[in-house]
Amino acid sequence: MRAKIEVFLKSGVLDPQGETIKRALHTLGYESIKDVRQGKVFYIEIEDDNPEKTIEEIARKVLANPVIEDFKWEIEK
Amino acid sequence: MRAKIEVFLKSGVLDPQGETIKRALHTLGYESIKDVRQGKVFYIEIEDDNPEKTIEEIARKVLANPVIEDFKWEIEK
Repeated sequence: MRAKIEVFLKSGVLDPQGETIKRALHTLGYESIKDVRQGKVFYIEIEDDNPEKTIEEIARKVLANPVIEDFKWEIEK
Repeated sequence: MRAKIEVFLKSGVLDPQGETIKRALHTLGYESIKDVRQGKVFYIEIEDDNPEKTIEEIARKVLANPVIEDFKWEIEK
């Protein structure tokens, strides 16, 4: 089955990439964009008896840096 | 309102980052992971009369490279 994990910076953590994209969009005329924050997304193919446990563990221990990042995940059966 | 844009490699395009993560997970004992592909996600705050048009345009013209990437977006009102 397929799982998706999103990893994003905690609110309050500066996101220079997102800031740069916002400024670029303003330069291109997209003034209606008020904020941009960038995150990572992982599409995972998993064959597991307890995919929820494994995906949660991978997200927490491997893919996200808990000091500055949060994550959420879902499983598409 | 908030929008979310996901940008991911087209199927068939090699994803060395995803491959590296998969191998790392196997090394850590997560053998049930069969495939990993990594993408980008953009969380956008927008104030626009036609946010659908603007978000679609930004995704297509600015955030995704149409040669190797696909995208999808949604607006959370």
